[in-house]
Amino acid sequence: MENKHQIGLIGLAVMGENLALNIAGKGYSVAVYNRTPDKTRQFVAKAPGLALAGKFSLAELVSSLEKPRRILLMVKAGQAVDELIEALTPLLEQDDILIDGGNSYYQDTRRRAGVLSAAGIRYLGLGVSGGEDGALNGPSLMPGGSREAYDELAPLLTAIAAQIADKPCCSYVGPDGAGHYVKMIHNGIEYGDMQLIAEAYHVMQQVLKIPPAEQSSIFSAWNQSHLKSYLIEITADILQRQDSQTKLPMVDVILDSAGQKGTGKWTIHSALELGIPVPTITAAVYARFLSTFKTERLTAAQTLTGPSLIHDQDVSDLINSVRDALYASKICSYAQGFALLKAASANYRWNLKFGDIALLWRGGCIIRAQFLDKIHAAFTHNPHLTNLMLYPYFSSELARAQQGWRKVVGVCKQLGVAIPAFSASLDYYDSYRQNTLPANLLQAQRDYFGAHTYERIDIPGFFHSDWTNLPKLIK
Amino acid sequence: MENKHQIGLIGLAVMGENLALNIAGKGYSVAVYNRTPDKTRQFVAKAPGLALAGKFSLAELVSSLEKPRRILLMVKAGQAVDELIEALTPLLEQDDILIDGGNSYYQDTRRRAGVLSAAGIRYLGLGVSGGEDGALNGPSLMPGGSREAYDELAPLLTAIAAQIADKPCCSYVGPDGAGHYVKMIHNGIEYGDMQLIAEAYHVMQQVLKIPPAEQSSIFSAWNQSHLKSYLIEITADILQRQDSQTKLPMVDVILDSAGQKGTGKWTIHSALELGIPVPTITAAVYARFLSTFKTERLTAAQTLTGPSLIHDQDVSDLINSVRDALYASKICSYAQGFALLKAASANYRWNLKFGDIALLWRGGCIIRAQFLDKIHAAFTHNPHLTNLMLYPYFSSELARAQQGWRKVVGVCKQLGVAIPAFSASLDYYDSYRQNTLPANLLQAQRDYFGAHTYERIDIPGFFHSDWTNLPKLIK
Repeated sequence: MENKHQIGLIGLAVMGENLALNIAGKGYSVAVYNRTPDKTRQFVAKAPGLALAGKFSLAELVSSLEKPRRILLMVKAGQAVDELIEALTPLLEQDDILIDGGNSYYQDTRRRAGVLSAAGIRYLGLGVSGGEDGALNGPSLMPGGSREAYDELAPLLTAIAAQIADKPCCSYVGPDGAGHYVKMIHNGIEYGDMQLIAEAYHVMQQVLKIPPAEQSSIFSAWNQSHLKSYLIEITADILQRQDSQTKLPMVDVILDSAGQKGTGKWTIHSALELGIPVPTITAAVYARFLSTFKTERLTAAQTLTGPSLIHDQDVSDLINSVRDALYASKICSYAQGFALLKAASANYRWNLKFGDIALLWRGGCIIRAQFLDKIHAAFTHNPHLTNLMLYPYFSSELARAQQGWRKVVGVCKQLGVAIPAFSASLDYYDSYRQNTLPANLLQAQRDYFGAHTYERIDIPGFFHSDWTNLPKLIK
Repeated sequence: MENKHQIGLIGLAVMGENLALNIAGKGYSVAVYNRTPDKTRQFVAKAPGLALAGKFSLAELVSSLEKPRRILLMVKAGQAVDELIEALTPLLEQDDILIDGGNSYYQDTRRRAGVLSAAGIRYLGLGVSGGEDGALNGPSLMPGGSREAYDELAPLLTAIAAQIADKPCCSYVGPDGAGHYVKMIHNGIEYGDMQLIAEAYHVMQQVLKIPPAEQSSIFSAWNQSHLKSYLIEITADILQRQDSQTKLPMVDVILDSAGQKGTGKWTIHSALELGIPVPTITAAVYARFLSTFKTERLTAAQTLTGPSLIHDQDVSDLINSVRDALYASKICSYAQGFALLKAASANYRWNLKFGDIALLWRGGCIIRAQFLDKIHAAFTHNPHLTNLMLYPYFSSELARAQQGWRKVVGVCKQLGVAIPAFSASLDYYDSYRQNTLPANLLQAQRDYFGAHTYERIDIPGFFHSDWTNLPKLIK
């Protein structure tokens, strides 16, 4: 009788292949299956030294596995996952474990976890970040679902994850959809980080006319500071690259029209549902939308006027101000992301450990950065911290950075250079720290036209006024 | 045999009651039904001079109506509408007309229209705006659904609607969910308008220390200008009112914590789905979210520092700049709302008439304003106008207003006064009119870490680079 395999993996697109290679490389024996048999054959043939066995039907795959079986699904999020679960369920037994390693919507994962739990099958929704390279060499893993199933899989998952200071970027996140939710927030924050970097580049290009190669050096220098992160690092690299055909800076030949795959939008959906403002991430998503209207923008540029781009700023001072704007905005963006995690944790009863989540993101994933250690420290200091900005390190950094931040935003508003995420972050900061917002007038309006009532500052309760019959003030 | 009634109305909350009174007041005979019989009895007893007949079961209501029957549902949006439709359907016959006058989600209306059409029942999703007062004295009506059913109901609907210059604020919007969608956009724009007014008040209060009574005069003056609108009018009135108990300005005793009912969020949901940026409306929704964190803000105000509020601005000049910021931001907000309508019309094949929609909103509803005549003119001039800002009147107003707009935003950013909607509107303007946005860097990053490919400015197609092997620029 042949030896049984320790884990099955379904779906051999690049992420599935690379995870299979990563798992097998750690000494596990892996049975793999793809809908197209040739794909399976070719993949297994490419990696002869590893314990990878091709299987050509779901039944063959399932019967080749040790019990309780462990099957990692690496298929396209959405209907494909539901179809696969439906096809697999009759082949599985009590206590078998299904793991969805795709980019599934957390509400789908919550639903599937409920259905499978009722069928006696243990389910994990596994957030995987780091792209192709991470999948192969060590991703950030955000497992949610059955705690018991996670504990059984922990040796494998922690072995294949990115390692930072000898600790794996993998730990149990919470029940049902928690892992995929945390992955979604990772991506939302990634949108924010990328847009903030793009705005720093934009200001240096539009206002200061600094060419890409020189900007590359500036980003490299920033990558030695508190801004040190993967995205700053690759930005410095991108900006120093040349297009072989035109000999122009590579970035200058790329069309300014950015795509997106949906996780940024999901983040905003959840924020709207839970009543948590995420203006920086939203500005990033909207900036991508607007970027795609290239033809419209070219027309508009001829019709809609703006100021001239001439400024009287000291160059090196403004560069430092851009760095401060970037850092302060980044703090605000993460503050929004973690505030949303906090609200989701309460709403879905996930009991998320925010400090642990920060550690998961230190390696393997796109937003990996030293900065996350500070967030870990913040939640270690106070696990119930209301908002990251209130942690002394962040509040003092915001205090320090705000002069430059305000200067950059002010200069850009005067010159007509759009910096929606820098600006939305600053308004978030200023709104959040304001004793008094003008929402009293909003409530007065709502009560005036719709009898929606208001609260008073001096007496508890809800009140309605017959506005047109109130006494008038003496003017 | 008793005479049959011309229309039935179900649901006697305040909107239902007032619409019933409005319809009966126009000479129609109305049969009314409420789940609670006493409510029905009391209502009918209150209005003895009108042709209102109380009915005490759905069957009794239905059998009391002329054929084809017309029944207006005025019940809480959501499940109550589905339950009512399910209960009514077996009582109805081919060609009867159901009208949902509640605040239903347009996707629900699309679904119900499909189901009822298959059952041979004609369905209208009727957006109603104007609150209690509008329902009684003339609302703005946004009917969508069966065109044939609308034509039969047009005499009644146009009779009860608000009239502006002898024309009713009621005309057919488009198929299935179009009417409720247009109502949703109305509400989204209303959120934007209210927040922009609140920010004008906030700047005058925080920066210029102008007391409410004096601000009332300023808003009154603005209400004689191109800003003339219902919301400016009631703001002027609110700001001149005194609290009888404390003798303080009424607005000063109202807690700065604003509620919301969801249509603003729906608008953003749709914008995300259709890929249309609506930053002004979003800033308004987030500002309401943030306003509700009053306790958090009081804590944050002690921890998070900001600049002093001392300014060197000329007061009357800054007041004029606030007016310009308000008007320019309002143009941007409506531009976003109509861009979203345009995208929805294409996506759902509604063939919306944007100029007609502007006319629907001139009276009866909350956002009613002279300004809407300009929007009507814009779409009369060019029914395919890509973006409102490009219409000569609006582009020249934006050109004129921008100096003051930029000044207000700049001053507030320097002083630490949050003006998220003024600011987001300005970034929308500046992004939209920019030939070059920094999305080229975003695409480079996406290609670098995820092989997402990019387009070039010089050659068609999609490209991927092996970034770390590209030649380097000479620094």
